[in-house]
Amino acid sequence: MSNQVFSPQVAALIPLFYIGWSDSVLSPSEVLLLQKKIIAFNWLNENDKNMLLEWCNPKSPPSDELQQKWLSSIKKTASKINSEERQSLVSLGIEMAKTQFDNHDWLTADVVSALNELESAVGLVSLEMHTHILNYEQIQKERHFVLDTSNINVTSLQKILDDDYSDIRKRVFKVLHDPMFSLQTIRNKEEYREQVLKWCKMLANQGFGALHFPEIYGGDNNMGAFASVFETLGYHDLSLAVKFGVQFGLWGGSVLWLGTKKHHEKYLKDIGTLELPGCFAMTETGHGSNVRNCETTATYDQDKDEIIINSPTLSSGKDYIGNAAVHGQMASVFAQLIVNGENHGVHAVLVQLRDKKGNIGKGIKIEDCAYKLGLNGVDNGRIWFDNVRVPRFNLLNKFGSIDQNGIYSSPIKSESRRFFTMLGTLVGGRLCVPRAGLSAAKSSLTIAVRYALKRRQFGEQGKPEMLIIDYPSHQRRLMPLIAKAYALDFALTYVTKRYCNSNEEDMREIETLAAGLKSEATWFTTSAIQICREACGGKGYLAENRFADFKADSDIFTTFEGDNTVLMQLVAKGVLSEFNKEVTGNGIMGMVNYVTKRFVSTIREKNFVNTNNTDEGHLRDPEFLLDAFKYRLEDLSVSVGQRLRKFKKKGLTTYNAFLRCQNHILEVAKAYVDYIVLEQFVVQVNQCSEIDLRKTLKLLCDLYALHTMELNKGWYLEQGCVSGSKTRAIRRLVDKLCKEVRNDAFCLVEAFGIPDECLSAPIANYS
Amino acid sequence: MSNQVFSPQVAALIPLFYIGWSDSVLSPSEVLLLQKKIIAFNWLNENDKNMLLEWCNPKSPPSDELQQKWLSSIKKTASKINSEERQSLVSLGIEMAKTQFDNHDWLTADVVSALNELESAVGLVSLEMHTHILNYEQIQKERHFVLDTSNINVTSLQKILDDDYSDIRKRVFKVLHDPMFSLQTIRNKEEYREQVLKWCKMLANQGFGALHFPEIYGGDNNMGAFASVFETLGYHDLSLAVKFGVQFGLWGGSVLWLGTKKHHEKYLKDIGTLELPGCFAMTETGHGSNVRNCETTATYDQDKDEIIINSPTLSSGKDYIGNAAVHGQMASVFAQLIVNGENHGVHAVLVQLRDKKGNIGKGIKIEDCAYKLGLNGVDNGRIWFDNVRVPRFNLLNKFGSIDQNGIYSSPIKSESRRFFTMLGTLVGGRLCVPRAGLSAAKSSLTIAVRYALKRRQFGEQGKPEMLIIDYPSHQRRLMPLIAKAYALDFALTYVTKRYCNSNEEDMREIETLAAGLKSEATWFTTSAIQICREACGGKGYLAENRFADFKADSDIFTTFEGDNTVLMQLVAKGVLSEFNKEVTGNGIMGMVNYVTKRFVSTIREKNFVNTNNTDEGHLRDPEFLLDAFKYRLEDLSVSVGQRLRKFKKKGLTTYNAFLRCQNHILEVAKAYVDYIVLEQFVVQVNQCSEIDLRKTLKLLCDLYALHTMELNKGWYLEQGCVSGSKTRAIRRLVDKLCKEVRNDAFCLVEAFGIPDECLSAPIANYS
Repeated sequence: MSNQVFSPQVAALIPLFYIGWSDSVLSPSEVLLLQKKIIAFNWLNENDKNMLLEWCNPKSPPSDELQQKWLSSIKKTASKINSEERQSLVSLGIEMAKTQFDNHDWLTADVVSALNELESAVGLVSLEMHTHILNYEQIQKERHFVLDTSNINVTSLQKILDDDYSDIRKRVFKVLHDPMFSLQTIRNKEEYREQVLKWCKMLANQGFGALHFPEIYGGDNNMGAFASVFETLGYHDLSLAVKFGVQFGLWGGSVLWLGTKKHHEKYLKDIGTLELPGCFAMTETGHGSNVRNCETTATYDQDKDEIIINSPTLSSGKDYIGNAAVHGQMASVFAQLIVNGENHGVHAVLVQLRDKKGNIGKGIKIEDCAYKLGLNGVDNGRIWFDNVRVPRFNLLNKFGSIDQNGIYSSPIKSESRRFFTMLGTLVGGRLCVPRAGLSAAKSSLTIAVRYALKRRQFGEQGKPEMLIIDYPSHQRRLMPLIAKAYALDFALTYVTKRYCNSNEEDMREIETLAAGLKSEATWFTTSAIQICREACGGKGYLAENRFADFKADSDIFTTFEGDNTVLMQLVAKGVLSEFNKEVTGNGIMGMVNYVTKRFVSTIREKNFVNTNNTDEGHLRDPEFLLDAFKYRLEDLSVSVGQRLRKFKKKGLTTYNAFLRCQNHILEVAKAYVDYIVLEQFVVQVNQCSEIDLRKTLKLLCDLYALHTMELNKGWYLEQGCVSGSKTRAIRRLVDKLCKEVRNDAFCLVEAFGIPDECLSAPIANYS
Repeated sequence: MSNQVFSPQVAALIPLFYIGWSDSVLSPSEVLLLQKKIIAFNWLNENDKNMLLEWCNPKSPPSDELQQKWLSSIKKTASKINSEERQSLVSLGIEMAKTQFDNHDWLTADVVSALNELESAVGLVSLEMHTHILNYEQIQKERHFVLDTSNINVTSLQKILDDDYSDIRKRVFKVLHDPMFSLQTIRNKEEYREQVLKWCKMLANQGFGALHFPEIYGGDNNMGAFASVFETLGYHDLSLAVKFGVQFGLWGGSVLWLGTKKHHEKYLKDIGTLELPGCFAMTETGHGSNVRNCETTATYDQDKDEIIINSPTLSSGKDYIGNAAVHGQMASVFAQLIVNGENHGVHAVLVQLRDKKGNIGKGIKIEDCAYKLGLNGVDNGRIWFDNVRVPRFNLLNKFGSIDQNGIYSSPIKSESRRFFTMLGTLVGGRLCVPRAGLSAAKSSLTIAVRYALKRRQFGEQGKPEMLIIDYPSHQRRLMPLIAKAYALDFALTYVTKRYCNSNEEDMREIETLAAGLKSEATWFTTSAIQICREACGGKGYLAENRFADFKADSDIFTTFEGDNTVLMQLVAKGVLSEFNKEVTGNGIMGMVNYVTKRFVSTIREKNFVNTNNTDEGHLRDPEFLLDAFKYRLEDLSVSVGQRLRKFKKKGLTTYNAFLRCQNHILEVAKAYVDYIVLEQFVVQVNQCSEIDLRKTLKLLCDLYALHTMELNKGWYLEQGCVSGSKTRAIRRLVDKLCKEVRNDAFCLVEAFGIPDECLSAPIANYS
């Protein structure tokens, strides 16, 4: 492209394009406008038009090299002309063209006025685009009224939260700020679904849908960036986030991770552009959590070299499947693969559901899930297959394939290990869901804090009414939530990173971490949004103030991508088996050694020395806090281990022994997640180099840790490792820290970096 | 009426009417059908028609005397004719007419066929009406599959829950079972509001709206029955319940309780029939909880003998007002009453908002609150008044009036006492809200339990999958909720009764009880519905399974009729002032005496003796449980009293002293409510005479009490009055009781008595 010859008309447009791309995004409205104008300009030849249209394509933006070239030629010209002419991009462009071309015949009055028109049109869009920057400056000013005690550097704090993904987030926010994305109340599900599909297409046009795909299929091989896009969409509309996740994460992910090159070549590009909408058909009506026992069959018919997909019962229908009710053309169908009469366990097979016109294929029955509690912009449906035949090619065969002789083979011999390895590749989705949920929680917190900083009610007689944020009860409701939102953010970033850089050895632990954090974060989301809604009283109940949608849409997050209670049992099993390896390497004596050596000496002893220590320095010492969390985890693990052993000695099966200890086991999982979250928070505090910011992070970390200890004080007291006077001291300290966080509350939610047009709630405005 | 002379045609219809009224309700569809037919019958004269139409009026049903007369003449005839003829109501009626009238000319073939047609038409409706009885029988059969260990007498248990209001509940359920009330998904708020208005009118036609009004205004002077109607509507559609409550409870209640005879005569009848829809305009945008400082003014203009209603600021607009956006014609407007320049505090004044055609009055501005999180069948709106003039007559003057000379007077001298007395009369609403909320929670529990009794997932290899209700974690989620639903039901019934029979001395305590139970029960509702939704997984997320509406509609219950956190502070102040009276009668020494005498000796001592007692008999001894609850209440009260005193000694104002102790104070309120709820549960157990049922109630009571103790074990351990081994024993016992309750779970939710057509959720069906 860099070697192309410009015509003078194109040269005159370069400054406009350079500025348009300066923040590396052209939003859908800008693209549309430019395309329309360029096509209409009869003073451009076809070559010019094609080149300019290429420069408008957000999926292949002008290269950095080209943009550098533009910049240097702009600079060269700009330095020569007077400052008045420089103010207009058009006059600058014309000057540039004039210096490069001797013939000035092209420069008619019509062309000049067309160029000026274009500049002002793009300018309007761009201004509209950037109002959130203006708003933010206004807010910065307002801040001085609201609170002048906080001197948190919001920008630096936001950078810590953004981690490596500031740029992609900014790009997504710029697109979401496009007028085409403005939030609407669409009550009718059919309309809403079409709106969300349109939005998804615009996102695909920006290349967001394929970020995790290999570059040859339009992607960037960047799962971290993909997860950040999903998370950022959570600030806008969760139906959009989920539809996006279904299409690119689940449907695309199944082809990417479970398929092989032949499938990638045939499908990935069209999936990434949303040319080929599809479904991830795993869950069945009768089998939600217990996927391994799903009833759908995929039977290989050697005679015809085809696979027959069948739903033997009503309850074996695929249920709640996103994209199924209306838009999906294909599906990855999870089914028991039967080859030559032998069941090799669950595999995924591609099935065409509809043609491009939407006609449903023979033998396929689809039902609409109709209205749901939320996410009504997603077309969930049920699918039944009546002996539907597909070619052998359609088996996604990374972990199990059938050769031309009808022989099944797999790189993983054990059916059980194969099943869990397959599911393990899909753990990315399990990390996306809690991140988008956390976005909804952060939006809720931002709205609730801003409202609490202007809402006044009651007060001392004769004085102005009090800001509700100054009530200790209000601080107790909101401040621990802010601390925990930070805590979970850091933990989720940590696990996402580990997932992006994982190798096979890591996977088991990453799955445990993902399952635990998914549960903890989505439960947090449900309760945080609820508390924020209540903290905004009647105003919080109005749909315009957003809690309605946050609540309804995120509610299912505790269930899908794995029911939280089921996941927490997986977490506990992961923890206990790790623990067991370490403890029982030497049989029962290993256990005894462990308890006396490591457990008692390092944790228990330290804690017991400090049973009555109520000193603030001690209570806020990360070593004490980490020890206390670890103590809870290890003590619960040891005691559940002992109980399991006892039940097994009594002759119970492993299944029944676990069942008897189920509630105890769930406590182990909670203790594990709490410990991981604190550990990562402490890491963040330690690696922060700005002293003021580090103090702020430590304050939040301490509040998170002490508040969590307070919630579990019954357990700690029961163990006798803290005294009543110590838990009382913790309560008082939590009160105190809540009050301190209150002073930074505005900046702390500001650092979540949610643009006003995403919040959109009138009660969060400064007016 | 009983002296009226029948024509033979009417006599022939008597058996039909007798059967129609046999369950004391004619449902809207039956009424409509009968009216239409009667008017169309050209073989009836005008007199006949009028008499029959009167017999169709649900607001003045045929008297008991008349129905007795019908019965005896039916019996007389029936005994004479053969059994075949008896099977048809029409042949029976004709026989009756024949024996009473010699001339049989009226008996043409046309008349006979018209009568037969009428019978079969009414029969169809009635059959449809009674399918829920059929369904129930089917379920009773199914029960034997589901569970045969429980032998709870569901009918007796339901009677205990229904208390004195079985009949009114049955009548409401029959009306709700009318096809005209079948539940629909109406997403559009305008349509939904009209549907709810229509429903409300049908309920008014049944006389339900005026039950709490005096008899001369169409009522029955029966606040308890009115509250039961409201609660029962909560099983159907909470928009309907709230609209009903706004019109009859709030708007009607304001005229009834704050107005005087002249207002009653002019308005009550039309309010009770919904001829005059109106609003309760109390809350302002700027003043939700702090009503006493509302900004709207009502200034008396002596020259014109008028009152001028004015909203001085934007934030003084009346907000969230039900019936305001569309249907309300009048409003009770709460405003600062200024007479002759003096502010006498908040009073209510009637203002015409719209004429019958819906034209809004001069000087009045109304805005629609638009879509809300839920309750979209209620037309909430905002109202501003620009110096709107109304006659002096319109002041609701029970607690403060202006005479013809423009002199203000009140039976209550203190402005503060007057304000609280006025609000106190409205406490009925505060009791209705938690009852309807509890209905939604009970519906959710019924659905979740029935689902858990048929849903299977996972299990031991080679065996059928397990019912999810058999997982200890599932039992832990649902069983304590069932116990608490019973607990709250009994407590709410107790307080409603005290309210219905209250005198002035009681009122302070009843207000405290109502505020506390409203908060506790509505918080319970929010969390119970959430837990039930999650317990039903993806199925719970489908709109058809009802949790969507239960959640959305009941969400505001924690805010309206008094924000829970604000109410709990009132509760604590009520408790502390009572406590204070007792304790500090003799100054600070009274306190010391109290602590040493009553508190330590009766509670602490008993508890400490049993610090380590983990015996089940002890743990389930109501005396221990009541003592433990009372100990928590009294210890928290004493300690907060000491802290308040300390702060006041340091020179803090009362307001600031309370502010400093706010979280502590809220704990007092919670402890109070917990104690009251347990106390009433124990009363119910003790007064139950059926031994088996008593055991069941005690099981639920113990689970409620021990689970509540477990939730507060941190506090108990902190105090040192229970040991760790005791709290561990409590945990094990709660697990065990959950398992026991699981065996009765089906019957326990069945006894809530919710008809299937109200539940309506497909996952709750037996199929």
